Amino acid sequence: MRPERVRAVLESIRSRRMTIAGALSLLKQMPFEDRGFAKIDHHRHLRRGIPEAIYAAGKTPAQVAELFVRQARAGLAIATRVSPAHVRAVKRRFPRARHFATARMLASSLTAPGALRGTVCVVAAGTSDLPVAEEAAVTASLLGNPVTRVTDVGVAGLHRLMAHRSSLLAARVVIVVAGMEGALPSVVGGIVAAPIVAVPTSVGYGASYGGLAALLAMLNSCAAGIGVVNIDNGFGAGCLAHLINGPR
Amino acid sequence: MRPERVRAVLESIRSRRMTIAGALSLLKQMPFEDRGFAKIDHHRHLRRGIPEAIYAAGKTPAQVAELFVRQARAGLAIATRVSPAHVRAVKRRFPRARHFATARMLASSLTAPGALRGTVCVVAAGTSDLPVAEEAAVTASLLGNPVTRVTDVGVAGLHRLMAHRSSLLAARVVIVVAGMEGALPSVVGGIVAAPIVAVPTSVGYGASYGGLAALLAMLNSCAAGIGVVNIDNGFGAGCLAHLINGPR
Amino acid sequence: MRPERVRAVLESIRSRRMTIAGALSLLKQMPFEDRGFAKIDHHRHLRRGIPEAIYAAGKTPAQVAELFVRQARAGLAIATRVSPAHVRAVKRRFPRARHFATARMLASSLTAPGALRGTVCVVAAGTSDLPVAEEAAVTASLLGNPVTRVTDVGVAGLHRLMAHRSSLLAARVVIVVAGMEGALPSVVGGIVAAPIVAVPTSVGYGASYGGLAALLAMLNSCAAGIGVVNIDNGFGAGCLAHLINGPR
Amino acid sequence: MRPERVRAVLESIRSRRMTIAGALSLLKQMPFEDRGFAKIDHHRHLRRGIPEAIYAAGKTPAQVAELFVRQARAGLAIATRVSPAHVRAVKRRFPRARHFATARMLASSLTAPGALRGTVCVVAAGTSDLPVAEEAAVTASLLGNPVTRVTDVGVAGLHRLMAHRSSLLAARVVIVVAGMEGALPSVVGGIVAAPIVAVPTSVGYGASYGGLAALLAMLNSCAAGIGVVNIDNGFGAGCLAHLINGPR
Amino acid sequence: MRPERVRAVLESIRSRRMTIAGALSLLKQMPFEDRGFAKIDHHRHLRRGIPEAIYAAGKTPAQVAELFVRQARAGLAIATRVSPAHVRAVKRRFPRARHFATARMLASSLTAPGALRGTVCVVAAGTSDLPVAEEAAVTASLLGNPVTRVTDVGVAGLHRLMAHRSSLLAARVVIVVAGMEGALPSVVGGIVAAPIVAVPTSVGYGASYGGLAALLAMLNSCAAGIGVVNIDNGFGAGCLAHLINGPR
Amino acid sequence: MRPERVRAVLESIRSRRMTIAGALSLLKQMPFEDRGFAKIDHHRHLRRGIPEAIYAAGKTPAQVAELFVRQARAGLAIATRVSPAHVRAVKRRFPRARHFATARMLASSLTAPGALRGTVCVVAAGTSDLPVAEEAAVTASLLGNPVTRVTDVGVAGLHRLMAHRSSLLAARVVIVVAGMEGALPSVVGGIVAAPIVAVPTSVGYGASYGGLAALLAMLNSCAAGIGVVNIDNGFGAGCLAHLINGPR
Amino acid sequence: MRPERVRAVLESIRSRRMTIAGALSLLKQMPFEDRGFAKIDHHRHLRRGIPEAIYAAGKTPAQVAELFVRQARAGLAIATRVSPAHVRAVKRRFPRARHFATARMLASSLTAPGALRGTVCVVAAGTSDLPVAEEAAVTASLLGNPVTRVTDVGVAGLHRLMAHRSSLLAARVVIVVAGMEGALPSVVGGIVAAPIVAVPTSVGYGASYGGLAALLAMLNSCAAGIGVVNIDNGFGAGCLAHLINGPR
Amino acid sequence: MRPERVRAVLESIRSRRMTIAGALSLLKQMPFEDRGFAKIDHHRHLRRGIPEAIYAAGKTPAQVAELFVRQARAGLAIATRVSPAHVRAVKRRFPRARHFATARMLASSLTAPGALRGTVCVVAAGTSDLPVAEEAAVTASLLGNPVTRVTDVGVAGLHRLMAHRSSLLAARVVIVVAGMEGALPSVVGGIVAAPIVAVPTSVGYGASYGGLAALLAMLNSCAAGIGVVNIDNGFGAGCLAHLINGPR
Repeated sequence: MRPERVRAVLESIRSRRMTIAGALSLLKQMPFEDRGFAKIDHHRHLRRGIPEAIYAAGKTPAQVAELFVRQARAGLAIATRVSPAHVRAVKRRFPRARHFATARMLASSLTAPGALRGTVCVVAAGTSDLPVAEEAAVTASLLGNPVTRVTDVGVAGLHRLMAHRSSLLAARVVIVVAGMEGALPSVVGGIVAAPIVAVPTSVGYGASYGGLAALLAMLNSCAAGIGVVNIDNGFGAGCLAHLINGPR
Repeated sequence: MRPERVRAVLESIRSRRMTIAGALSLLKQMPFEDRGFAKIDHHRHLRRGIPEAIYAAGKTPAQVAELFVRQARAGLAIATRVSPAHVRAVKRRFPRARHFATARMLASSLTAPGALRGTVCVVAAGTSDLPVAEEAAVTASLLGNPVTRVTDVGVAGLHRLMAHRSSLLAARVVIVVAGMEGALPSVVGGIVAAPIVAVPTSVGYGASYGGLAALLAMLNSCAAGIGVVNIDNGFGAGCLAHLINGPR
Repeated sequence: MRPERVRAVLESIRSRRMTIAGALSLLKQMPFEDRGFAKIDHHRHLRRGIPEAIYAAGKTPAQVAELFVRQARAGLAIATRVSPAHVRAVKRRFPRARHFATARMLASSLTAPGALRGTVCVVAAGTSDLPVAEEAAVTASLLGNPVTRVTDVGVAGLHRLMAHRSSLLAARVVIVVAGMEGALPSVVGGIVAAPIVAVPTSVGYGASYGGLAALLAMLNSCAAGIGVVNIDNGFGAGCLAHLINGPR
Repeated sequence: MRPERVRAVLESIRSRRMTIAGALSLLKQMPFEDRGFAKIDHHRHLRRGIPEAIYAAGKTPAQVAELFVRQARAGLAIATRVSPAHVRAVKRRFPRARHFATARMLASSLTAPGALRGTVCVVAAGTSDLPVAEEAAVTASLLGNPVTRVTDVGVAGLHRLMAHRSSLLAARVVIVVAGMEGALPSVVGGIVAAPIVAVPTSVGYGASYGGLAALLAMLNSCAAGIGVVNIDNGFGAGCLAHLINGPR
Repeated sequence: MRPERVRAVLESIRSRRMTIAGALSLLKQMPFEDRGFAKIDHHRHLRRGIPEAIYAAGKTPAQVAELFVRQARAGLAIATRVSPAHVRAVKRRFPRARHFATARMLASSLTAPGALRGTVCVVAAGTSDLPVAEEAAVTASLLGNPVTRVTDVGVAGLHRLMAHRSSLLAARVVIVVAGMEGALPSVVGGIVAAPIVAVPTSVGYGASYGGLAALLAMLNSCAAGIGVVNIDNGFGAGCLAHLINGPR
Repeated sequence: MRPERVRAVLESIRSRRMTIAGALSLLKQMPFEDRGFAKIDHHRHLRRGIPEAIYAAGKTPAQVAELFVRQARAGLAIATRVSPAHVRAVKRRFPRARHFATARMLASSLTAPGALRGTVCVVAAGTSDLPVAEEAAVTASLLGNPVTRVTDVGVAGLHRLMAHRSSLLAARVVIVVAGMEGALPSVVGGIVAAPIVAVPTSVGYGASYGGLAALLAMLNSCAAGIGVVNIDNGFGAGCLAHLINGPR
Repeated sequence: MRPERVRAVLESIRSRRMTIAGALSLLKQMPFEDRGFAKIDHHRHLRRGIPEAIYAAGKTPAQVAELFVRQARAGLAIATRVSPAHVRAVKRRFPRARHFATARMLASSLTAPGALRGTVCVVAAGTSDLPVAEEAAVTASLLGNPVTRVTDVGVAGLHRLMAHRSSLLAARVVIVVAGMEGALPSVVGGIVAAPIVAVPTSVGYGASYGGLAALLAMLNSCAAGIGVVNIDNGFGAGCLAHLINGPR
Repeated sequence: MRPERVRAVLESIRSRRMTIAGALSLLKQMPFEDRGFAKIDHHRHLRRGIPEAIYAAGKTPAQVAELFVRQARAGLAIATRVSPAHVRAVKRRFPRARHFATARMLASSLTAPGALRGTVCVVAAGTSDLPVAEEAAVTASLLGNPVTRVTDVGVAGLHRLMAHRSSLLAARVVIVVAGMEGALPSVVGGIVAAPIVAVPTSVGYGASYGGLAALLAMLNSCAAGIGVVNIDNGFGAGCLAHLINGPR
């Protein structure tokens, strides 16, 4: 309900420029978004601070650039899965767009980490998982969360993981990104007390079935406190970690 | 590293009853759990406050009762998927065990909700989803979280969901439990700012494939901020919500 | 939006018993269902005339009887997949409930077919498909549609199908129920001009995979004008045929 | 049975130029299509008014152009999934062919909407679903149905959908096109009384499995009155909507 | 087209008791089965000699007995997947019915093998595959084919298979029945020149997925000349072997 | 067992140039193929007359040409799935190789159909199925079988199929090639008495899953007497039909 | 090739009681198993020392007892997946049969571990995996391998695993048994140098899909040196470990 | 636990420069890798002698070259799935790198086979399986194992396999590589006493589902003593064979 519009109607009634029947009819015919929903939605966006990301894969450079500029005007613009051609097209129209190469992302501005929020720790099993891990890390960072990174810590070399124990234990949320057998979230879940966002990746071949093996492993983890997102969905993991981290 | 044991060694060194080489050798031979790992683990349990649940399905009443009594001695015992026979066997050995009929759970005691924690709101799409939803709600409650419930609010009757908007908006975490097409988390994700724990259930028939349809729908949700747990895993959802809710 | 409530507010403004700010705040806090949604829903039920069916499988006889009586009070009660125990429990509390044995259904009353509506023709491939076909036929009939039946007309004996050509050609909607290879809708789609509702059944064994083979075949039909419902979902097919048949 | 051929035989009998045994033998040997089947088929095409569409994907431009010209001579020619090369090849041989760019379709002529038919409303969840939605809308339009469009109305932003409530409620048939979690048909099914044709799209990644997630969700919808077509099958949805809309 | 009916019409024309237009109209309205189709069907049954089998699984003893008696009157009755209760029910009504215990079949009579036909050799990989193998052997035998059996010849003990080389080489058709890895048809295909009917069985556990592993292996056989039937479909294999064996 | 080698040993014994122990040891150490197996194999090839086909897809033009020339020296060479580059490379080294364009095959010579064999009828559902159908037809023809073709006879236009009834009824074996819903073998199985070789094709999109829908439909056919080969395996179907057709 | 038979032939040649042509023909007609294959097979059994196990599931107690007695006469008899009824039936006929309750196995005798062989270490993730783990351990033990056991060491509590490091490091082969997410082999593979036999179990629910999740995880393990056997196949794992352990 | 560090602490206690509480706290905070884990890991690598392979597919030539040079400095560098571009990039920076063309591998040096180890026999079913088979053979060879090769021995031509019986019987480990129906490991398992490493390949089309058919067949093998690795995972098979072969 856009207050100004309703207020105008109410004032017309008060000043008797409008009958009650007429006002009633007017209120009923107002498009739905004028009746409270849009506001909830607006409120939600304000509180969540999560803009809709532009998923660049499958869109032309021109389309992505157009959407990027439009969203940048309204606030923070984020594009994911960008190719070099997408980057060039966006930079031409929005020169100060920031490009995150490994994460394959573009953003209209760099949000400063909020001073009082907890830390998001992003853990990646292997080097091939880095693009998805970076997508998660950059997303969480753009949304205002301090981010730490722990990389190349597969379950078959646990000592590498254990060396980063302090980073893991210090985090308010841990994002774990892994392909192949997807076992890392279970192991991390045995170390940290924080909630874990698990991201299966399509890294692997043969019976990895494009990330299905990792996805199923994560859903069946014997460790409690793990929420799973879609295969390769680094952006979604970053958003979920942001919401878990909470508004302070 | 059990402090008392290490302290004893260190004191022997100080009092010169033991050589440094002897102490070094002793420390090396101590079983692994004496060297820090167990403590982490203990610390983790203390902070998480999540006991290992006894998954009763497939276990005999005697086995469940035995495990229950043992865990109850160490702290909070929780059993899930209990049949009436399990309940009788446990109550015989542990009469003050509390039975949650719809949730199909047993607990050794009822934790009082922590005064300062946020609320966990559990939303169930249909009446057939109630056992899983109650498993989530009872788990979150036993772990000390205030819990509200919103039930029978399928996506094909959104007005029923909207009537509970205030409960949804007040929650720090929302658990959404749904079978069949699993669309409810997406819709709730368009309303609330809180992170969502989505629980697909095996409710449905034919092409629901035992919850696969709901699971895939939840993983592919167009709403950001949703973490998915295994099919019918109400206990896991309750634990994850507890960890998201945070230590205060 | 319940007009009387809004009208009261507007009148209070007019009579200056309420400030505009107060009215605005009041309107915002009105529960959602007071703002038009519930009414839409009511209107929808009135027009569709489709009550929510009680899916009896997995519910206790007592639960089904309770739900049945409650719905029967509000209008037409329909229960599907009823066992003999369900039937006894319902009949004890609602003696005039009508039992359709092959369709495994119970209904609180028998709707007379609407004089001016088109005919729904229900075609079943084999005798094992009859329970699902009858569920569709009884549902369509209870919702007020004249129903004809064509049974045991598998694609490997087309002459049996062709003998019922006139029934097929006379229908406004044709429901085709088939398991195994699910080829019948394609063949019927080559004969009739009416839209076809295809219902795969779980009839078959081995590589029928509980109806998957029939489901995929129907989705891939080379005949245009076929809408598919879930495996064994006779009730859904009856409802869809009813809506296609239209309000006259 | 081609009447003129049979009439000739009958007249030969009457005029005794042919014996009864000879006529009987002749009638038996007539090819099958001369005995009524072809006519049914013809009649079906006349009533349905659905030409066979040329599925251009996988065919060469020359093949598509040849088929297009041949069908255009017999009546309405429709080609789907056309590439720019297909368009050029067809336009060279049939210059007045009409190209629908978003729908990726070519048609030999533009059918004027029939004055007395109901409206087909095509709803698309996201911008990536537009090609399939347009294929459905253009198909329905070419077959003579008035078409309205509601686009970019995902379930996570319901207010956008509700703003188009009047278009939805006015339709005789609603086609709902959605990828990812495929939840939109369920939500629309809670609003409208009209039958719904649900079209899953291959939009998505990871666990969307090329549209499988959306397909399963639609088949399991808790809303009654939904018929599902194959993934990305906009043409089939348009045809089914046309047949549902009925002959007037 | 039933000749006598058409002849009557033709004679009425000749005798001018009927106009040509009237005759034409009459011929058009004759039900389809009067126009040749039924005859084809009859002819097919006569030539194929394959009665429709009664699939007893999921049918009540009374239903099976009723269908059995009806078919026995018309010729050979065959029931497959019969339980002891089915056997008792059929024998009560049709005492001379013959029961094949391992094959889980009932037949109304025992066809004597045709003197001049080739031999069908049925090969079974393991003892658990015997019920399906016997279903195939009994079916082929009942349809008049001389049958030889080679059993318990898994691929991991080829010498057992080779000992039966002469039986294999003498057959006109070889039916190979195997579960688990389903490799036997490939090996037999390297020995015999005859066409092979491969029957995957649901024997196995874990990743055999109810016969899927064997089915896929048989479809992918590197040996040419193998036709596959449905999992556990011994009856179908027997029928196919009969048709391959040919009419002499 | 190569007779000449064994004969030499035996003669050495007779002439006492070799001891019995020495001969025994020599016979034991002879490579396996010298002991009967190779001969069986040779015999099999002679009787079957099926050369191993060169599957060109995934091989370089040079590799295919090399294999082709080598096989052509030994008898009939057949290459399947050839690209234009394969054709050029083979023709350069073997100019009289015959290219079958639609079938995507190359053969070293054209076998004249055997006068006394039955006919193989190849039926294709749609024009997109023609490459696979031609692969089957050309294979059967090269192996010496008279072949007839029936094309473009989908199940949604049965009159087109019925027009070719005489070709179907005259065949000793019928190969049915179909993609999408794969229903055609069931329908043909209701018409002909001959055994049917069913070939699912990968024609289709969405839920056809690359031929899986057609494959499952064919395996679940309600018509008896159908053997299924791998998806798109026209060559295998031609071989099987050849073996069914028999040695005369 | 049974030496005595061939020797007789050779002696007949030498003594000229038989012509060379006659001997040649005789040798050709000898059944295959007389020509070396059976011997290989026998030799294989002797060396492997692996009897064929009786898979009791799905067999009657009488069948199992019969097979058990027959195998026990020939050497070691082993039955797997035995129910209490199987145990009773076997013990009645073979009283000294040894029953391993957790492993659900019966054996005719207890093989003493070979003094000089390496150790097989069997690791089980959870208590529900114990039956399969015991099947592996008992099998390896019966075949003569010293066996150690490490149980209840899930990946989410690594300290429990690390406490058994010395057992793990001392083994020549490690069998790792795990259900749910199947991550344990990867973790063990990061600790030990020995080859690992991984056994997925069907322990789990929902998206574990009867052990599929664990199976895929094990096949995709990032640790090298892991061989996977079928789901729940403890017997196969024990045999493979025995063969890896080697003959000394 | 790095002894020098702990020794320093202990000495400080002895000399009373440090309190016991202080020492305790210091020991607790030491990073994990200082407490034994890293050392185990190092030991493991030394004993296993298996370097981490660089999986080149999906990496740029520059990335592969960089990783290769870095690993070559530390010992043996191995890269798998290399394209010609990868080869050129590595050779430019590391000219003496050895390229194995069929195996698609690069190695920094050629390990001489260990004199006293057993032989690894690599068996490939068809020529298309050679790249994977060579990857296995080259890997085993680089790790110091004598390797023999048996190629082109499909199950439909067993005599070819039997001709290599002596190679098979002489091996300490047999690696069997096969696509399509994946039956070869079962057959080899009936001949040899050695443990078998089975490698399914993605060779095939249609219902081979990229190697799934072969994978399932191998997991379900009726022959005991088979461990399966991931589809196309020749490197993993070589490593497992190396570990089975053992340290001598």
